[in-house]
Amino acid sequence: MEQLYRYLEEGFQEMVEIRRHLHQYPELSFEEVETPKLIADYHEKLGHEVRTDVGGRGVVATLRGGKPGPTVALRADFDALPIQEENDFSYKSKVDGVMHACGHDGHTAALLGLAKALNRMKDEMEGNIVFIHQHAEEIPPGGAIAMIKDGCLDGVDVIFGTHLWATCPLGEIGYRTGAFMAAPDRFDIKIQGYGGHGSQPELTKDSIAIAGQLIVNMQQIVSRRVSALDSAVVSICSIEAKNPYNIIADSVNLTGTVRTFKEEIRNQIEKEIERVVKGTCMAADADYDYQFTRGYPATVNHKEETEFIAEIAESAPTVTSVKEYEPQMGGEDFAYYLQQVKGAFFFTGAGIPGRESYPHHHPKFDIDERALLTAAQVLGTAALEYLKKK
Amino acid sequence: MEQLYRYLEEGFQEMVEIRRHLHQYPELSFEEVETPKLIADYHEKLGHEVRTDVGGRGVVATLRGGKPGPTVALRADFDALPIQEENDFSYKSKVDGVMHACGHDGHTAALLGLAKALNRMKDEMEGNIVFIHQHAEEIPPGGAIAMIKDGCLDGVDVIFGTHLWATCPLGEIGYRTGAFMAAPDRFDIKIQGYGGHGSQPELTKDSIAIAGQLIVNMQQIVSRRVSALDSAVVSICSIEAKNPYNIIADSVNLTGTVRTFKEEIRNQIEKEIERVVKGTCMAADADYDYQFTRGYPATVNHKEETEFIAEIAESAPTVTSVKEYEPQMGGEDFAYYLQQVKGAFFFTGAGIPGRESYPHHHPKFDIDERALLTAAQVLGTAALEYLKKK
Amino acid sequence: MEQLYRYLEEGFQEMVEIRRHLHQYPELSFEEVETPKLIADYHEKLGHEVRTDVGGRGVVATLRGGKPGPTVALRADFDALPIQEENDFSYKSKVDGVMHACGHDGHTAALLGLAKALNRMKDEMEGNIVFIHQHAEEIPPGGAIAMIKDGCLDGVDVIFGTHLWATCPLGEIGYRTGAFMAAPDRFDIKIQGYGGHGSQPELTKDSIAIAGQLIVNMQQIVSRRVSALDSAVVSICSIEAKNPYNIIADSVNLTGTVRTFKEEIRNQIEKEIERVVKGTCMAADADYDYQFTRGYPATVNHKEETEFIAEIAESAPTVTSVKEYEPQMGGEDFAYYLQQVKGAFFFTGAGIPGRESYPHHHPKFDIDERALLTAAQVLGTAALEYLKKK
Amino acid sequence: MEQLYRYLEEGFQEMVEIRRHLHQYPELSFEEVETPKLIADYHEKLGHEVRTDVGGRGVVATLRGGKPGPTVALRADFDALPIQEENDFSYKSKVDGVMHACGHDGHTAALLGLAKALNRMKDEMEGNIVFIHQHAEEIPPGGAIAMIKDGCLDGVDVIFGTHLWATCPLGEIGYRTGAFMAAPDRFDIKIQGYGGHGSQPELTKDSIAIAGQLIVNMQQIVSRRVSALDSAVVSICSIEAKNPYNIIADSVNLTGTVRTFKEEIRNQIEKEIERVVKGTCMAADADYDYQFTRGYPATVNHKEETEFIAEIAESAPTVTSVKEYEPQMGGEDFAYYLQQVKGAFFFTGAGIPGRESYPHHHPKFDIDERALLTAAQVLGTAALEYLKKK
Repeated sequence: MEQLYRYLEEGFQEMVEIRRHLHQYPELSFEEVETPKLIADYHEKLGHEVRTDVGGRGVVATLRGGKPGPTVALRADFDALPIQEENDFSYKSKVDGVMHACGHDGHTAALLGLAKALNRMKDEMEGNIVFIHQHAEEIPPGGAIAMIKDGCLDGVDVIFGTHLWATCPLGEIGYRTGAFMAAPDRFDIKIQGYGGHGSQPELTKDSIAIAGQLIVNMQQIVSRRVSALDSAVVSICSIEAKNPYNIIADSVNLTGTVRTFKEEIRNQIEKEIERVVKGTCMAADADYDYQFTRGYPATVNHKEETEFIAEIAESAPTVTSVKEYEPQMGGEDFAYYLQQVKGAFFFTGAGIPGRESYPHHHPKFDIDERALLTAAQVLGTAALEYLKKK
Repeated sequence: MEQLYRYLEEGFQEMVEIRRHLHQYPELSFEEVETPKLIADYHEKLGHEVRTDVGGRGVVATLRGGKPGPTVALRADFDALPIQEENDFSYKSKVDGVMHACGHDGHTAALLGLAKALNRMKDEMEGNIVFIHQHAEEIPPGGAIAMIKDGCLDGVDVIFGTHLWATCPLGEIGYRTGAFMAAPDRFDIKIQGYGGHGSQPELTKDSIAIAGQLIVNMQQIVSRRVSALDSAVVSICSIEAKNPYNIIADSVNLTGTVRTFKEEIRNQIEKEIERVVKGTCMAADADYDYQFTRGYPATVNHKEETEFIAEIAESAPTVTSVKEYEPQMGGEDFAYYLQQVKGAFFFTGAGIPGRESYPHHHPKFDIDERALLTAAQVLGTAALEYLKKK
Repeated sequence: MEQLYRYLEEGFQEMVEIRRHLHQYPELSFEEVETPKLIADYHEKLGHEVRTDVGGRGVVATLRGGKPGPTVALRADFDALPIQEENDFSYKSKVDGVMHACGHDGHTAALLGLAKALNRMKDEMEGNIVFIHQHAEEIPPGGAIAMIKDGCLDGVDVIFGTHLWATCPLGEIGYRTGAFMAAPDRFDIKIQGYGGHGSQPELTKDSIAIAGQLIVNMQQIVSRRVSALDSAVVSICSIEAKNPYNIIADSVNLTGTVRTFKEEIRNQIEKEIERVVKGTCMAADADYDYQFTRGYPATVNHKEETEFIAEIAESAPTVTSVKEYEPQMGGEDFAYYLQQVKGAFFFTGAGIPGRESYPHHHPKFDIDERALLTAAQVLGTAALEYLKKK
Repeated sequence: MEQLYRYLEEGFQEMVEIRRHLHQYPELSFEEVETPKLIADYHEKLGHEVRTDVGGRGVVATLRGGKPGPTVALRADFDALPIQEENDFSYKSKVDGVMHACGHDGHTAALLGLAKALNRMKDEMEGNIVFIHQHAEEIPPGGAIAMIKDGCLDGVDVIFGTHLWATCPLGEIGYRTGAFMAAPDRFDIKIQGYGGHGSQPELTKDSIAIAGQLIVNMQQIVSRRVSALDSAVVSICSIEAKNPYNIIADSVNLTGTVRTFKEEIRNQIEKEIERVVKGTCMAADADYDYQFTRGYPATVNHKEETEFIAEIAESAPTVTSVKEYEPQMGGEDFAYYLQQVKGAFFFTGAGIPGRESYPHHHPKFDIDERALLTAAQVLGTAALEYLKKK
């Protein structure tokens, strides 16, 4: 591994440059054009087999080792967010209202840097490495599912991926066996009452009064119908029935999110919400619309591969701590890869030492770029150790 | 009328005696034996036509005038309550746990006294007077409906009745056209959930949580579904699910009362409660039982007859004030007579001057006995004026 | 009176013309310029004493009778509404987004027509008539209160006013002693929670969940804290917390209306809402803002004057029915005049026979113009009979 | 270990006899007399140092090894439950209304059998074994805390204990690092409103209406204020306000349970309930009483000792499977020992093969007695391995 770490050190400056370039030219999910082009060019120069437009805008590059062996996939996503950057540094976004506020620029740069380093070691490699550069992680249905359908996992034995995490300390690797990231779903409810004058509620079906009833009832889904040992969140985040002060609202729109880690709880909650909406509206003789829109499934790490990451991470030179993390309530379409092949998704701490980090998706989001090196070291070690072991 | 008033004055002492006798020997609704016997004997001695066991335990006596004319009915009820008297006077109840705590002893005594007075005037009377002595006013279905079926209103043109009212001042007559006394109904709801251990609500259907939802929802019946210009009360008065502290209740029983003045509002609320119960239970996948038990209908006074009472009451010597009253939320089965023939029901103030009155149904309930005279004067005047007028 | 009715018949065509002119040139409350000018000119031509800019934009004209006597005030309001007319007739509004959708054009035209008729009879009149042309009835604080402060009731003994009512049949006069129009108040509540990500409600104070609790609790004000014999409405008509589907709302705004007829109930509800808001927010450790903005007080008709209107209305030739009306839940700043002097406010039916009427404030609102004559007849009769009687 | 397992096999029949004897003569918590006597006698006959009446009714026996070394404590509880047994076997409870329905008879018998076996091996033992026979596990405050205060852990280095678990398969050992058993607390709430007649809620403070508001609000504690990654249950299990159907309840009593695994969540919920009660009552101008009664704390296993149990359990001959269990929502006062010294509490499967098990505390609760042998094997192996290891 010493060789890998040396090559990565040598490539670190270039990783930073790539990341800063991407940071200045962020592209929204499903609208990426220049980013995949840059990625494809980079791999082509390294002589890798490259497929573009995979599942839409994804890029898949394959590095074949000098000797036969299994195939390890490493994945990095490359889309940005519709956020106006508020950072001041020289390489801030040049695209109005678009920003790499989730670190995907770093993911991509780290994986490209790692590709170059591994390329230098290919003759000794017993097996192959597939670099999956994924578009559109931020918006369901996401790029992963389409790339998988388009064959990006064909022949792959195992997959690893990481997320740079700004609120975790630099040098820390966070892992968790089993459900690590939640399934983030969305619901939309419309209560259709019947409007009228505020002085004569008896001639109306007061949709706001019904909404009050619904809001309090929906609390029982989590408090009464899900085991305390399971995790579930049902949050009504938006409510809207803007009306004159004296006219009873004809309808109310409520929108919110559900987070779960188990498919059966997810399915149950989808049904429970509808039952509560239906019963509550029936009690008031009102109508309703109900939409439950599934985001990604829960990201469920495989036990053996996760423990493998936890073990090999220790040896990466810039890793100072390896920790079991609690499950995370956010979602990630890495979930789909793990439904197809074995693998693990982990966090790479990217907090800038000595200051409070802004959370992901914040206009002032930032990372310590040394985390790119850490991510590349751990992913690279995992790939090489896996090939060696098999 | 002067004659009537003189005869009543002469009979007043006897009225008081009869009232005190009845007070000492109160009989529960539907269990009256001695009271109707006393009444029947009294009328028989006066030579009136007497029918006993009318509609069960009622007594109907008819005084025929010397000349032809219409027939006026006067009604007094005679049952007592399952209350242990806490008064100290010499004529307090001798029956354990039974008490004339609503003044029906006074109604009966006044009507008997009036019968005797009118009897002395019968030769000049152009028409007839029917004395309806009703059993069982306190407990639905009440005696009135059965007495009516048994013919007590046959040939009757108009009916008048009064209630001695302890919390109104002596000498005051209270009247109201239209709905005067409410329809007092009862509902019983059982929420059938599914019990289980308090630590695992997800294995249960938590009937208390459902009850909470139901209680808050039932408030909307009055606040949202009844016009502010109509009157309605829905009160949940009892809730019961007594359980160990750590075992989720299998079911909850709720009982309460509804008060309305209009039949359409009453019908609506009966249905609205069920809809709310049904929808709320459906939202929680639970079952329910729902019973709506009708008490008496609203007592709705006829306009012309009520104004007639208001007018003639002024001339009764012991009447000092005649007032339009607000509707009363209590119920009264006089309602049924008014559904059959024209008439009016009014209040006769019976408060004891200089002290706070105990409310009706209180163990220390008491009346000023001079109110018997007032009641007899107004009912007698009404009867004679009515005969004269027609 | 025959003379009055003849003069009014003669002037009817002009009333219609004035009304149609005003209808084409509606002016918003507190922005009236041409309307008061037209009114003042008309009275000046008749030789009445005229005061303009009374309390802002009001016009007060006085017609002095040939003989001494009391002073009767008659009031008509003249402002329009911010509504885009959707009628098709030739005299539809020429002002974009402004419309006489409440009949005030008719009130004004009827009063001017009546002024001309009475002017012809002034020599015989024993007393004076004050024509109060009021601006800004539609928007609190309204014009009445300012006109009163500016002296419009000085020397006035009694006041009468009417509202043309499109949903009542032509030829019908509706009256009611006591509270006739409600006090229409407004409340604004802001629940200040603490926003955050939808997956981590424990780090937030979920203002929408609190709002649900508040909405259900506010139902108890009417259902539990106001007597069924009193009238009160509390309607939450608007709720707003528009947010992304996965971000818990920082705050929620609720707005609504309260309608009452008694000042003590009104005061009580103002306090009850605050107590419920305060307790509910306290239960969730959240903050709140609460504003209760009073509209007009209840319009409470004086008994003698109302009965007087009911009586004299019968004799107006175009009146076909005189009815006691239920209280109306809408508000009217005629209320303020009745707090200063005796008087009565009544409805004049203005429905167009043979078709369903659009409600007041509707873009297709319309009246049968013959109602102008009816209104003028009743107001004129009232004025003259009052002068005669005193 | 082979020696231990052979001795235990030899003693198994006696264990069963002891267990059946205890089963026939169960004694309630804090009322144990004969059971501790039997235990003390047994140890005395083996020549162990015995202390009786420890912390009330506990028995502590010490077996000193032939060589110096650390001290291991093994704990078994011995109280029974106020349940009428419904089993039919020959050794069913002879005490009316009292039953060993939780397997403590088996715990005691297994530990006594193990004591005899270990006694035979004492010369080679490097260290000591303390047998903690605890009274009163079923009722807070429990016997553990008093026995600890009375010195039962003095000189103890590590403690192990097990629970026979009828709903887990025979041969299975269930372990979990960290929180294994919940803290089971109790709350009692009284809402003090103000009673009155059901037709006049405005004269009352309707405690049932307030209770409805409270029940729905308390759901938000779990649904909104506790992280989905933490476990908490708040169940209202009893509600009581039994009243006539037409009399508004003066007060309502609610009782329920809270289950948590973390002390900070437990403390938070204790406060949150009070805040919700206080705010809800304030919103209705009502009073309240609130009691939060703590049961045992959460039973939190130490990591190293739990992994040790998981490891050594494999070698016990009758153990067929060793599994990580989910946390259990029930409580156990073994919690207190683990607050003082290192150790682990685990489950020993005791289901009777081929049939559905009745749950603990059921009148037909039963265990497969072979589980006594399994429990003794695992506890004995743990003790000896621990002494050897140190």
